[in-house]
Amino acid sequence: MRHLLDTRSLSLAQLQDLLETARVIETGWPSARLQDSLRDRLLINMFYEASTRTRISFEVAAKRLGMQVVNFATTGSSAEKGETLVDTFLTLQAMAPDILVGRHSDNGAITDLAQYADEGVHIVCAGEGTRSHPSQALIDAYTIQKIKGSVKGLKIVIAGDILHSRVAASNIELLAKLGAAEIRLCGPTAWLPRGSLPGQAGIYETLEEAVLGADVIMMLRIQHERIRQTGELDLADYTRNWCLNSWAANLASDNHVVMHPGPINRGVEITDTVADGPRSAIRQQIANGVFVRMAIISTLLNQ
Amino acid sequence: MRHLLDTRSLSLAQLQDLLETARVIETGWPSARLQDSLRDRLLINMFYEASTRTRISFEVAAKRLGMQVVNFATTGSSAEKGETLVDTFLTLQAMAPDILVGRHSDNGAITDLAQYADEGVHIVCAGEGTRSHPSQALIDAYTIQKIKGSVKGLKIVIAGDILHSRVAASNIELLAKLGAAEIRLCGPTAWLPRGSLPGQAGIYETLEEAVLGADVIMMLRIQHERIRQTGELDLADYTRNWCLNSWAANLASDNHVVMHPGPINRGVEITDTVADGPRSAIRQQIANGVFVRMAIISTLLNQ
Amino acid sequence: MRHLLDTRSLSLAQLQDLLETARVIETGWPSARLQDSLRDRLLINMFYEASTRTRISFEVAAKRLGMQVVNFATTGSSAEKGETLVDTFLTLQAMAPDILVGRHSDNGAITDLAQYADEGVHIVCAGEGTRSHPSQALIDAYTIQKIKGSVKGLKIVIAGDILHSRVAASNIELLAKLGAAEIRLCGPTAWLPRGSLPGQAGIYETLEEAVLGADVIMMLRIQHERIRQTGELDLADYTRNWCLNSWAANLASDNHVVMHPGPINRGVEITDTVADGPRSAIRQQIANGVFVRMAIISTLLNQ
Repeated sequence: MRHLLDTRSLSLAQLQDLLETARVIETGWPSARLQDSLRDRLLINMFYEASTRTRISFEVAAKRLGMQVVNFATTGSSAEKGETLVDTFLTLQAMAPDILVGRHSDNGAITDLAQYADEGVHIVCAGEGTRSHPSQALIDAYTIQKIKGSVKGLKIVIAGDILHSRVAASNIELLAKLGAAEIRLCGPTAWLPRGSLPGQAGIYETLEEAVLGADVIMMLRIQHERIRQTGELDLADYTRNWCLNSWAANLASDNHVVMHPGPINRGVEITDTVADGPRSAIRQQIANGVFVRMAIISTLLNQ
Repeated sequence: MRHLLDTRSLSLAQLQDLLETARVIETGWPSARLQDSLRDRLLINMFYEASTRTRISFEVAAKRLGMQVVNFATTGSSAEKGETLVDTFLTLQAMAPDILVGRHSDNGAITDLAQYADEGVHIVCAGEGTRSHPSQALIDAYTIQKIKGSVKGLKIVIAGDILHSRVAASNIELLAKLGAAEIRLCGPTAWLPRGSLPGQAGIYETLEEAVLGADVIMMLRIQHERIRQTGELDLADYTRNWCLNSWAANLASDNHVVMHPGPINRGVEITDTVADGPRSAIRQQIANGVFVRMAIISTLLNQ
Repeated sequence: MRHLLDTRSLSLAQLQDLLETARVIETGWPSARLQDSLRDRLLINMFYEASTRTRISFEVAAKRLGMQVVNFATTGSSAEKGETLVDTFLTLQAMAPDILVGRHSDNGAITDLAQYADEGVHIVCAGEGTRSHPSQALIDAYTIQKIKGSVKGLKIVIAGDILHSRVAASNIELLAKLGAAEIRLCGPTAWLPRGSLPGQAGIYETLEEAVLGADVIMMLRIQHERIRQTGELDLADYTRNWCLNSWAANLASDNHVVMHPGPINRGVEITDTVADGPRSAIRQQIANGVFVRMAIISTLLNQ
C-alpha cells in the first residue's frame, strides 16, 4: 500500500490487515499510548476545507505514534496568494514529509496528487469532494466489526443526503467488499445516488421501510456546503421524513447499531434520544478513529 | 482536584498547594525546563474566543511538561457546521485527551462540560463569560505573593470594567480567600459589579481614592467584545477618569505593584510610563503564567 | 550572531559559516533527520502576514532539531484586541522562547524588536516589509552554491517586481557580498529599485537583454499585497514583457539555473515549461530551505 486514496483500490487483504492493525493498537491502549519508533517522521495535514474531527484525529493519531505534525489550512496561507493546489503540494512535499494528509472539496483533487508524490511520500485522502473518505469508511467498518463481530451478512441502512456524501460513497464500496448482506439506501429523491451500485445495494422509499429489521443504521450529515441548489432543501420536510427518532429506530433489529459520521445536526438528522441512546455508537466511532488512523499511518510507513 | 473551573470551589489548601507547586517549578527553571514524565499525555486547547496569551501560555506550559498538544479554535472547524459545544467537547474527548482547556464567551459554558467528562479527563476553564478565569487569578495571586511575600493584609485595587471582567470576578474571590485586607473596586458607575461581594470588598468613587495607600493596583482591560451597549462608552471620558497615570500611581504605597492581565490598551487603561515603569509587574504576570499553568496541569494529572 | 534580522549586517565569515552548517546538515540527511540536543528549547513563530512555506519551513526546521514549536498568527489573537506589536512581542517573550521568528508587512517592524529582546532570546526576521528576508536570500545563495559551486563570478538576473520584493532586496545585498560578477535587474519601470545599489548591480531595459548569457535567473512574485496603486498593473502587459518563457530562458548560458521564491503565478511570472523544466531549481529552493533554517537556528543557539 503506497497511498490511501479511496476504498475502491483497497484489496480485501489490505483492508483486513488495516482493521486487524487497528485492533492490535487498541488492545495495547493505554499502556502503549505513546510510541517512539516514528519520532523522526513528519506528517503534514493539508486541509482545504473546514474540519475539526478529521484533522485533529489524524494529528492525535500521528502524535500517539510519536511523529512530528505540521498543520496547513487555507486560511492565512499562500493559497490566498493564488498558488495552485499542485504547487502547494509540491512545496509541502519538498519539506520532506513522510505522510501528507489532504482534504479538498473537489472530486479527484487529492487523488491526482499521487502522480506527483516523491518516493517515500505517502498521501492519505482525508475527504475529497462527494466521492471519497476512505479513513471514515474504515472507521465505520471497524466500529461495526467491533460491536457485531463482523460486517458479513449484516443489513445496513445508509440514510439521508447520499448524493453529496463522500462518507456514503466510501462506505457503500467498503461494506459491499466486506460482505454486507444488504446495503439499504434511502433519502430525499433529489439526493439518491446516481450511477452504478454494488449488487447488495438497494433503494428504499421511506426511512421506516429501510430500517425494518436492519442491523446497522448509518445516518448522514446534510452536506450544506456541497448542495448547489439549496432551494431544494425544506428542513421541516426533511426532518419529518428522514430524521431518525426512537420510533423509527425501534423498527430495526433488537441489537441494532446507530452511527453518524458527525458533526450532528440534532433534531434534523437524528433525535437526541437516539443519538445519545444505548444503541448509539457515535462516540465510539470517534474514539475508534484514532486507532484506525494510527493503523493507516503505521501501515504506510512500516511496510 | 478533578477540574479547575472557577476559584470559588478551590479550598484554601488546594490553592496554597497550587501556588507552592508553581514556586517549586519556577525554582527548577531553566535546568528543568523540559520534563519527560507526561510525554504520553495529551492536552487539547478548545478556544471559542480569540486568545494569544492564554492559549499559548497553556500550550507552552504543556510542552514544557513534555505533553502532546493539539489546538482547536472556532475558525475552520465543525463549529461552523452547526455542531453544539457539548457535541464538539464529546468529539474531542473521544480522542482521549488527559486535559481539555476550554474558553467560551458564555457564562457556564465550560463549567457545564464537567458533567460530561469521562473518568481521567480533566477540564480547565481558560476564561468563561464575565465570571470565571481561574488560572489568571492564580497567576495574579502568585505574582503578588512573589513580590510582596503574601496576599494577607494587603490593600488591593481593582479598577476599570469590573462588570464585564472575568479576571476581576475570579480575583475578587481568590484574593478574599487568601486574606487580602481590602479589595477596593472602582470604575464607571455602569461597570461596577452587581451582586454580592466578599466582606473585604468595597466600592470607591474615584481611582484616586481607591489607590490612596494601596499595595497592589490591578487595572482591567475594557472588554469591548462583552459590552452590549457600546453607546455607553466614551473613551476620552474613560481615560480622564480611569486611566492609571504616574500621578495616580504615586498615591499608592511606596512599594506598590501595578498589574494588568493584558492585552493593554495603552493610554486608555494605563499610561506607558506606568505600564513600563519599575513598579509594573505586567511582564512578570505573563512569565509566571507558564509556571502556574504547569502547576495546574501537573496537579490535575499527578494526584 | 545574536539575531538574524537582515543580510546587510552579516559578515562574510558568518555568512560562509551558515552556508557550511547547512551543508553539513544536508549531508547528514536523512539519517540525522531528528536531533535531540535542542529538545528543551522553544521556537515561537509570530506571523503578521499570510505564509505557507516560510512558517512551515521554520516549523519543520525547528522540529527536525527536536525543538518545541508554538505558532502565533494574527487571526484569532490579541492583535485583534488592539495590542501593539511590541506588546505582543513582549508577551510572547515573557513565555521564555529561545527563538522568535517574526514576519510583518512594515519595514523595520521585526528589526525594531531586537532592542527589546531579553538575554538568550534570538530574533529571526522571516520577512519584513519590502526590504528584508534574510533566510530566503541565504537559501538562494545556498542553492546557487550547491548547483554552480560558488556564487563568485556569476551573472545573476533578478527580474520582476523588484521595488516591492524583500527577496530581491536581501538577495542583491547577499549576492554582492558573495562576489557575484553581475547582478542584472529588470522589470517594469515603476517597479525598478530606488536608492543605492552595490557596484555589481545594473538595470536592464528588457528581460531578454538581462538574461543573455546569464548563469542564474531569479524571477520574483508580483507582490499584490504590497502594491499600493494597483491601477498601475496590467497583467497582460506584464506577462508579455516579463514572463520567463523557454525562448527567453534559452538566451542564458547553457547551464543556467532558474529560481523563484514562490508562490508562483504560473503563466504570469514564469511559464509552466520553464518552472517545471530541467533548469528549474524552484523545488530545490524549498527543500534547501529546511536545511538553511536548521543552520540558522542551530547557529543562533549553539554559539
